[in-house]
Amino acid sequence: MMGKIVIALGGNALQSGKGEATAEAQLEVVKKTCAYIAELSDMGYEIGLVHGNGPQVGRILLATEAANDITPAMPFDVCGAMSQGYIGYHLQQALGYELKKRGKDTPVLTVVTQVVVDAEDPGFKDPTKPIGPFYSAEAAKAVEAEKGYVLKEDSGRGFRRVVASPIPEDIVEIDAVRRLWDSSIVITCGGGGIPVVRSADGKLEGVPAVIDKDYAAELLAEKIGADALMILTEVEQVAINFNKPNQENLSTLDLVTAQKYVDEGQFAPGSMLPKVKAAMKFVEANPGKKAIITSLDKAVEALAGNTGTVIVNK
Amino acid sequence: MMGKIVIALGGNALQSGKGEATAEAQLEVVKKTCAYIAELSDMGYEIGLVHGNGPQVGRILLATEAANDITPAMPFDVCGAMSQGYIGYHLQQALGYELKKRGKDTPVLTVVTQVVVDAEDPGFKDPTKPIGPFYSAEAAKAVEAEKGYVLKEDSGRGFRRVVASPIPEDIVEIDAVRRLWDSSIVITCGGGGIPVVRSADGKLEGVPAVIDKDYAAELLAEKIGADALMILTEVEQVAINFNKPNQENLSTLDLVTAQKYVDEGQFAPGSMLPKVKAAMKFVEANPGKKAIITSLDKAVEALAGNTGTVIVNK
Repeated sequence: MMGKIVIALGGNALQSGKGEATAEAQLEVVKKTCAYIAELSDMGYEIGLVHGNGPQVGRILLATEAANDITPAMPFDVCGAMSQGYIGYHLQQALGYELKKRGKDTPVLTVVTQVVVDAEDPGFKDPTKPIGPFYSAEAAKAVEAEKGYVLKEDSGRGFRRVVASPIPEDIVEIDAVRRLWDSSIVITCGGGGIPVVRSADGKLEGVPAVIDKDYAAELLAEKIGADALMILTEVEQVAINFNKPNQENLSTLDLVTAQKYVDEGQFAPGSMLPKVKAAMKFVEANPGKKAIITSLDKAVEALAGNTGTVIVNK
Repeated sequence: MMGKIVIALGGNALQSGKGEATAEAQLEVVKKTCAYIAELSDMGYEIGLVHGNGPQVGRILLATEAANDITPAMPFDVCGAMSQGYIGYHLQQALGYELKKRGKDTPVLTVVTQVVVDAEDPGFKDPTKPIGPFYSAEAAKAVEAEKGYVLKEDSGRGFRRVVASPIPEDIVEIDAVRRLWDSSIVITCGGGGIPVVRSADGKLEGVPAVIDKDYAAELLAEKIGADALMILTEVEQVAINFNKPNQENLSTLDLVTAQKYVDEGQFAPGSMLPKVKAAMKFVEANPGKKAIITSLDKAVEALAGNTGTVIVNK
């Protein structure tokens, strides 16, 4: 046993650039992704997978809203649940085959996962995460009146619905995930999880929100007692002065330095910033453990300590 | 321990009559359904749930096809995976709460499930299961040419795509389902499962098909070693001469008599016939065990032997 790793898969692990937004084209990308994941599993790591769902849930929402005259549009929490079924299916099918090619019959399975958020999370008071189609100013008013959505102007391109991006607090299906972990590769908290709020009597209710999948992966890593949190993205290493002449790639990052760079605004919000913050949260709660940020194709090398950015608490 | 039961939930357990096709209205129906299921669990039965998905996957398909100009339509296997996420999410949320109200914290979870069918199944040569929107004769030809679908005229209402309804042969995620069974209520094989064919080297590939959920439940009951297969539908008992003056409700049905009624055409294809045939298959393979067909609200009484139709091998 090489250790327990929670892997957060970014958007580029699930689909290629624009113009190839079909499910069929995505499956081809997923197959390539799964070859890398199977490699890690074959090396002896116990893996759990958390995936993003931005483009996929976006398209589900676009389709359901566009077809609203024909069949009622789905609430956003249900769109999230659908995206877990869709992406999880592709991942488990492709990863199962990649493992089989390596002579392994490790079960791979997707658990539909609800993630609890706080109804009092500040995100619900001032939602900022845009989802779904663009509306004209006039149409936006009608949608606000009819559906109670909050819409905001989006970079001069029109109005879009905005939802909260609350912090994940609990994973409803964690017991089952724990039970499956030793024997299986579990795909869980897809898209950050289906956001639900919990009443005092334990009742759960879906809410329209987007949970950051890196924060959800961090919570999972804590709950499962993972040895490492690995966040896979498009770049091999975290950098400061990114895309500037003095760009500097980072091999290791301790908490103090990481916080300094965060305060300097070195990491882009909605991009590298949540990854670095999730990594910091994990090692802060688990001194002695590590978080790694790297690219999919460098995951093996990064685990061997030869590349990637390792965030440590020291 | 009162025994292991696989329960197949029919369409009426997931939504009420027409005109209430929203996900929100469905969730209210699912909550009522889950009160009955929680009752059975509370009595000590170990339960696994298989649900239908006809209306839900139908609406997913309608929406994705209608919005094809905006975002590429999803293949039908992916629509099935999405329906598993959607319905499973609602069931696990509602059932979890009903159990909690009874002081139980039994985990409830949905496993995205692939079900293997034979690529040589006769259903693929002569598909008969209509799915998706209606087309004019002209539009039908265009769709056939563009997408390679098979379309057939549907009862004078226009042309519709038809897909195979193959026999389920294997459940890909069965090991995980077995592992979870003792500790959890598992929702699996939703909509009959996502249909996949398996190549000689173990590769799985999704196919456009609809697996009958009663047959999938039967297969699950066999694989899990269930003590009973319970098929819940709209009627309290199976009947012969259904809806005629001489209608006769049946309390028990042995295999010989059941086959006689099947041969007489007593049970409607696509309705009671697959339920009776799935029940017969289960008791044929498991002499001494029983299959029960009844309505949701009579499930407890039927398990006590006071109503429903019990199919036995004797």
